[in-house]
Amino acid sequence: MPTADADNGPMRRALEAAQLGPRGANPLVGAVLTDEDGTILATGHHRGAGTFHAERDALRAAHSAGVTDFSRTTLYTTLEPCRHRGRQPACTDLIQEAGVPRVVTAAADPGANGGGAALLDGRGLDVVTGVLEAEATKLNHRWNLAQTQQRPFVTVHLAQTLDAKIAAADGTSQWITSEPSRRHTHRIRQRVDAILVGTNTAHIDNPRLTARNDDGELADSQPLRCVMGLREIPEDAILKQHQPEGDGWIQLRTRDPLEALRTLAGTTHGGYPVKHVLVEGGQSVLSAFFAADLVDEVFAYVAPMLLGVGRSSLGDIGVTTLAQARRFALDPTDGGAVSTMDSDVCIHLKPEPEGDACSPES
Amino acid sequence: MPTADADNGPMRRALEAAQLGPRGANPLVGAVLTDEDGTILATGHHRGAGTFHAERDALRAAHSAGVTDFSRTTLYTTLEPCRHRGRQPACTDLIQEAGVPRVVTAAADPGANGGGAALLDGRGLDVVTGVLEAEATKLNHRWNLAQTQQRPFVTVHLAQTLDAKIAAADGTSQWITSEPSRRHTHRIRQRVDAILVGTNTAHIDNPRLTARNDDGELADSQPLRCVMGLREIPEDAILKQHQPEGDGWIQLRTRDPLEALRTLAGTTHGGYPVKHVLVEGGQSVLSAFFAADLVDEVFAYVAPMLLGVGRSSLGDIGVTTLAQARRFALDPTDGGAVSTMDSDVCIHLKPEPEGDACSPES
Repeated sequence: MPTADADNGPMRRALEAAQLGPRGANPLVGAVLTDEDGTILATGHHRGAGTFHAERDALRAAHSAGVTDFSRTTLYTTLEPCRHRGRQPACTDLIQEAGVPRVVTAAADPGANGGGAALLDGRGLDVVTGVLEAEATKLNHRWNLAQTQQRPFVTVHLAQTLDAKIAAADGTSQWITSEPSRRHTHRIRQRVDAILVGTNTAHIDNPRLTARNDDGELADSQPLRCVMGLREIPEDAILKQHQPEGDGWIQLRTRDPLEALRTLAGTTHGGYPVKHVLVEGGQSVLSAFFAADLVDEVFAYVAPMLLGVGRSSLGDIGVTTLAQARRFALDPTDGGAVSTMDSDVCIHLKPEPEGDACSPES
Repeated sequence: MPTADADNGPMRRALEAAQLGPRGANPLVGAVLTDEDGTILATGHHRGAGTFHAERDALRAAHSAGVTDFSRTTLYTTLEPCRHRGRQPACTDLIQEAGVPRVVTAAADPGANGGGAALLDGRGLDVVTGVLEAEATKLNHRWNLAQTQQRPFVTVHLAQTLDAKIAAADGTSQWITSEPSRRHTHRIRQRVDAILVGTNTAHIDNPRLTARNDDGELADSQPLRCVMGLREIPEDAILKQHQPEGDGWIQLRTRDPLEALRTLAGTTHGGYPVKHVLVEGGQSVLSAFFAADLVDEVFAYVAPMLLGVGRSSLGDIGVTTLAQARRFALDPTDGGAVSTMDSDVCIHLKPEPEGDACSPES
């Protein structure tokens, strides 16, 4: 059996694999299967809510690679295996059924699905926990924070000019970003449980807030359409789709983003609780979320054009001096930190860990 | 001898090579040397004022690769060879001395150094002109425009937060961008003839406007330090370095960027005319240059932080509706369009060709 030190290498590979997945309702998780001398037989990662867990993905990859005898293998996973059947079968069962005798985990699952490592240990498997635990915990730092705060994970969409305008002085705004950027946004819309905009955006832009496929057709799964704010939404707003409130759309009658998120956490959509929200705008809503440090991930689409004056993407976020700036880091997960979409630059960001300690200024 | 169609392939390679160089005082130029069956023996490109021309770079590369007999070669160059000795020997002479019998060019040189192709033709070489001429002309579109307007080439430096702020509400601004971003700016400062800021920046930031090496030492060659505007500069401004005006620094007493550039075009620094200016800020000066469509190249350093309110990088640039937006394209020359510098994203932009047709709104 490998020593604890020898477990670091495969676990590092599992952490790398985890970063291939998207952030959102579920944490990023990676898994690696090795043989007894530490050779990697297969890797796996989680691709978001409703898809295979990383452990199952790695076991499937091993099967595909022709592995039939798991009796001398070790499964490394960056988060302890789940032990309850949810949308997916329990990973503890899958691991045992495959005949894997040894499991090494990094971080523990603090949630309702925790305890999988102890369960496997009790069933007689050789279980090692806490390998590269700090790195694994850091990877899902904001996801853990969202759990602690009993709120959905928040992804923010910023689509702006290089000088951070979302509309020209006369209000014209279609289109600032490129078609590939807008298609990318629609792919993110398909992965979230809810989209949120402010009442002002609902009035001015009258958006559909639907998720469309690359060919422009409505996607099979549509997020809950949410408008946040106290002002009433027009009767003929397109996002209502002639449906009563609660039927595909809701209004969150508050200006407090945490209150809005907690309401959403208690709301179900399509049979599942809302665990991932995409906040799209406008200025007031985005500013309130940044001010309250309730942004877990940012996709900023920067179009190479300048307007000079016009409507800014953000307003007051409670920062008066540079030391208080809301700081982010390039997020390499889910396809990379920086990509070009036609002539737009898409920048994928995560909050700087240090930033979390700041109390909201608002 | 290859047919005209067969000349397109090597010329396309020469155009690709041209894009490895930096924009500035001189146009981008690439060169390719082939043998009689079209096989590429060497490529070359120009690396900026004071360095080898592309033709000489290609011939040198051929020598290094062991080519000694040039009697059956063809030299492809994206701009016709120069025929006057300047900082560098005349390329027409170098080509003839090497014994190259055939020269293929793309664009003609409209400047004082034009006529090289006709000269070589007159000396008995086989000369073909105008191969992929449109592409070659487009590559140096803004450089040609600067020549026509009898002004230096203008590179703009934008260093800002993601929400396009250059200072927080209380004026704090050091540092928004990362150290690698600032080192990159200093490398650009070393390549230009002059740096230009507004009187406001001279007052508030009191900048040195020096070019420093990566180790922080003063570079051998220092650009002319220019302040544009009507307000007097404080006697103890650091950029004056206790020298009288004209000795390393000048004030351009105008608010009109074209007038400022024309004055610079008639100014010499270090024995050479000012052909390349880096405009660094602040808001008023940058806005005036964008409004007048006098920006030929942009390096935008975007730091992943948000300030919400504060000083914006730009003010009014004469745009009131989206259709008038100043549009740019990603510029792949000189190392690529998008790069990361620590956590900053550096976006390298060139004006959209269509944008040139717009008359300035100011």
